[in-house]
Amino acid sequence: MTEIKGIGASNGVQIGKAFVLQDPKLTINEDKASDVQQEKDRLNDAVEQAKLDLERIQKHVEQEMGENHAKIFGAHLLVLQDPELLNAVNTKIESEQVHADKALNDTANQFISMFESMDNDYMKERAADIRDVSKRVISYLLGEPLVTTSDITEEVILVAHDLLPSDTAQLNRKYVKGIVTDIGGRTSHSAIMSRSMGIPAVVGTSEVTNSVDAGMTVIIDGQTGDVIINPSDDQLNSYQAKQQKEQEEAEQLKKLIGQPANTTDNHTVELVANIGSPKDLETVIENDGEGIGLFRTEFLYMDRDSLPTEEEQFQAYQQVLSTMANKPVVIRTLDVGGDKDLPYLDLPEELNPFLGFRALRLCLERDDLFRVQLRALLRASVYGNLKIMFPMVATLEEFRQAKAILEEEKQSLIQAGHDISDDIEVGIMVEIPSTAALADQFAKEVDFFSIGTNDLIQYTMAADRMNEHVSHLYQPYHPAVLRLIKQVIDASHAEGKWTGMCGEMAGDEVAIPILLGLGLDEFSMSASAVLPARKQIQNLSYSTLQEATTEILSQSTNADVKAYVEKHFLN
Amino acid sequence: MTEIKGIGASNGVQIGKAFVLQDPKLTINEDKASDVQQEKDRLNDAVEQAKLDLERIQKHVEQEMGENHAKIFGAHLLVLQDPELLNAVNTKIESEQVHADKALNDTANQFISMFESMDNDYMKERAADIRDVSKRVISYLLGEPLVTTSDITEEVILVAHDLLPSDTAQLNRKYVKGIVTDIGGRTSHSAIMSRSMGIPAVVGTSEVTNSVDAGMTVIIDGQTGDVIINPSDDQLNSYQAKQQKEQEEAEQLKKLIGQPANTTDNHTVELVANIGSPKDLETVIENDGEGIGLFRTEFLYMDRDSLPTEEEQFQAYQQVLSTMANKPVVIRTLDVGGDKDLPYLDLPEELNPFLGFRALRLCLERDDLFRVQLRALLRASVYGNLKIMFPMVATLEEFRQAKAILEEEKQSLIQAGHDISDDIEVGIMVEIPSTAALADQFAKEVDFFSIGTNDLIQYTMAADRMNEHVSHLYQPYHPAVLRLIKQVIDASHAEGKWTGMCGEMAGDEVAIPILLGLGLDEFSMSASAVLPARKQIQNLSYSTLQEATTEILSQSTNADVKAYVEKHFLN
Repeated sequence: MTEIKGIGASNGVQIGKAFVLQDPKLTINEDKASDVQQEKDRLNDAVEQAKLDLERIQKHVEQEMGENHAKIFGAHLLVLQDPELLNAVNTKIESEQVHADKALNDTANQFISMFESMDNDYMKERAADIRDVSKRVISYLLGEPLVTTSDITEEVILVAHDLLPSDTAQLNRKYVKGIVTDIGGRTSHSAIMSRSMGIPAVVGTSEVTNSVDAGMTVIIDGQTGDVIINPSDDQLNSYQAKQQKEQEEAEQLKKLIGQPANTTDNHTVELVANIGSPKDLETVIENDGEGIGLFRTEFLYMDRDSLPTEEEQFQAYQQVLSTMANKPVVIRTLDVGGDKDLPYLDLPEELNPFLGFRALRLCLERDDLFRVQLRALLRASVYGNLKIMFPMVATLEEFRQAKAILEEEKQSLIQAGHDISDDIEVGIMVEIPSTAALADQFAKEVDFFSIGTNDLIQYTMAADRMNEHVSHLYQPYHPAVLRLIKQVIDASHAEGKWTGMCGEMAGDEVAIPILLGLGLDEFSMSASAVLPARKQIQNLSYSTLQEATTEILSQSTNADVKAYVEKHFLN
Repeated sequence: MTEIKGIGASNGVQIGKAFVLQDPKLTINEDKASDVQQEKDRLNDAVEQAKLDLERIQKHVEQEMGENHAKIFGAHLLVLQDPELLNAVNTKIESEQVHADKALNDTANQFISMFESMDNDYMKERAADIRDVSKRVISYLLGEPLVTTSDITEEVILVAHDLLPSDTAQLNRKYVKGIVTDIGGRTSHSAIMSRSMGIPAVVGTSEVTNSVDAGMTVIIDGQTGDVIINPSDDQLNSYQAKQQKEQEEAEQLKKLIGQPANTTDNHTVELVANIGSPKDLETVIENDGEGIGLFRTEFLYMDRDSLPTEEEQFQAYQQVLSTMANKPVVIRTLDVGGDKDLPYLDLPEELNPFLGFRALRLCLERDDLFRVQLRALLRASVYGNLKIMFPMVATLEEFRQAKAILEEEKQSLIQAGHDISDDIEVGIMVEIPSTAALADQFAKEVDFFSIGTNDLIQYTMAADRMNEHVSHLYQPYHPAVLRLIKQVIDASHAEGKWTGMCGEMAGDEVAIPILLGLGLDEFSMSASAVLPARKQIQNLSYSTLQEATTEILSQSTNADVKAYVEKHFLN
């Protein structure tokens, strides 16, 4: 029995068999080969096995997650059909009398370094494809099975060093019941993704992959961050009881489905969900999200070699709008750059990417790609209640320019005979301090604000939340952050507009009473947080919270605010 | 005649002969050497020449700029005295029959890659020393003179790709009359340094080093950013007239020496100077700075292999305090990290260094080095009017912790029998939005604020000013920035405290009327800007500017504010 402490990233207790995502140790055979023909045959067999493998995964991912996510496997299959690579390997086996794994490894490395040395991101992506595929074939040659998230076909607790976007793209929540990783914090990719899929998760354990073997029984508690490997019977019983209790509470929460989020004194707010792709809609519906407060559109652009077409985008937007019927759907335009790179866009290397050329800044300069997205959005607008949101706005000029481009595309689509909704709200993310401080001016021109606290806190505190040396300065309850939020909400109300929040903070139980008191109109969170938030709000008094606002904003530190709220508004 | 446009970085017209700072093209002779003994003799001669060279520069720099700046040359001389390196070169000449330059180059590269591969910053610095020294010796061997700023011994216009801190450390303002560089903006190191030394400068010309040869006549206009190479007689006459006029104006400005900076309705503010080391004091005195508003102490820590001792620091602080007699001297504690690395501190690599582990954040964790600096400051306090300032404060906890450490060191020095002033003000830089937004709480605990606009603007706009793709978002007149500044000034006055500003903005002629109207008490700027600012302020009405404040703060963009000020308050 081993106990490990991590960071609770997505609530819930889970008990299950470990599935360990780890690169196999592939030791290349450097000896001379005695039988050249045998090596050529082995190569051929391994290639065929890898092909079957890839075809199976491609089909599976396409079924479960859509064509877009399956594309990468098509690219991998192409590598295996490339005669140039395989001929080179066969020639090497013959001329140097080496084993198939050695010949493939050396040849692949040659191709990889050739492609990587080219100053062309497309070719660099090809190098990555060859690396992945040759690893798969070599793993067959050496009898060491290669493991990916797409190999998961039964219920498991997924144990990994970290999860990359490409891992999570292939992750099936039917089978993955819990997630534990070595690295990451509450706002890392793995954490956000697990919340949005409603999968309990513990991140930042440092060492879990060293302590677990495949098949071991693992307990995770996504609230406390506890992980237990090979639990004792007592532990198993106690956590089963806790899981049971959670399930009962979840059943209780289900009774809130269909109810409004209104306070004891009948002030109603909107509880909506953040999604990263249409496949997240299932969890939103289950948890009765009252709409979508943030649809991140980056997924359309990632894990591929070129920009998505207008048609591909249109289909994704239409699907979300139709599924949500007439509930509000806020779709954010492309937010790449910063920590999200798209190799095929050839973005500049930056010393401080978080203070750099990203999101709307990029879209205004690369308005070719911006216009494609806007056209797709406009065309989809007739299928539901669309609101368009621009990210990373720092100046009014930027908003005006973006809105003018949107207007141009709208007119051109109308002239081409398209139907466009004439009731599309156009708003902005408030995630830069300048925009919060000038919210009164912005409120005259935008239709709504949505406060992006993940970035707003980062810039307000001048602290990168992913940097362990300063992450203690990422303080959501710092009175300066709360004052900026108040300014934004007040400014919007003065102009008859509304303010939402789509950062992690909107679903946080300490933040909810504060934000309610400040008058926030819309709370957008992980779908799994909607019903607990609804329950919390139904037990709070709006007028009491409003009265407490002055005292909360005059606290001097994050710790003081937290203590105040815990004392007065949390049981 | 060639005309080039750059960015005016430090005002003033200068006409002079170009001194081009450029690495010589050293082509190593790869042929076999016919006479081995001759090569060994050539090596010996070149080493002796390089030694004389280094000794001369070391002495010169020590005289002109102090012992600290001369240390690097001592380290270089040690390399030339290292028998291991020279024996290895001689052996290579003999055993491989190669020329001295080839043998030295290969051997030096071997040593360099050996040192660089060590995971030890001290050793990496040794690699840099060997690279510098071997380049110097090879340049003698090949008869290609090596040029550094310390070789300048007559009046010149310095032309360079860029100036590194180590270049400017050796730069003598007696001889360097003007500076032109290929890269950089108004807030780059070269620009700030040239303003603080009062040397006219144009930066960011892209191409000046390609267009100028040593000795060509060059005209630079540090206000307009114009650079003219090989000017016509007409141009020469016209710029000589302009220079003449500037000198007359400078004479006029000199008449303001000794006068206060008071407005037409007799509101007086303080005009003080930013300095980077004691050698900047000369310019401050010449320009009648009323004190030091920012003494950056990083120079004590840079271009060396280990931390400065308490005694070294004490001497520097004492020198500045004594020279400034009883005028106020604000000394900022160590601000490294971000774009300023100190190899011997082994700081972590960061994805976003500007949002990272720097300045006070570092000092609070590495309080060993912080305490040494505080002790040196406290001991120097009796020599003048010292004010201590902490940089990069984001929370009240940080300020309280820093002040507690200061108090501990004070008590321990008093117990050890030291004299400490009992009138040391302790304040903070306001350069993080959270601190501006919470200034009312800070004002209860600090003695003063100094607004660091270079960083405050960066964080408020979420735009790295050094990043060309977003530097247009570095907007000093953005109403959000001005509102934050107003909050800070008002908060300090409500508690009977004062607010200064030590960013570039404090000396900017568009900003001065705004800041005056907002009630800023102290303006700290490049020394050369003090008298022009005094003249400007003496022609402004405080009450009129106060009245204009509301209108200025309700503008919606940076451009609108600028236009408003230019229309109403600039001639």
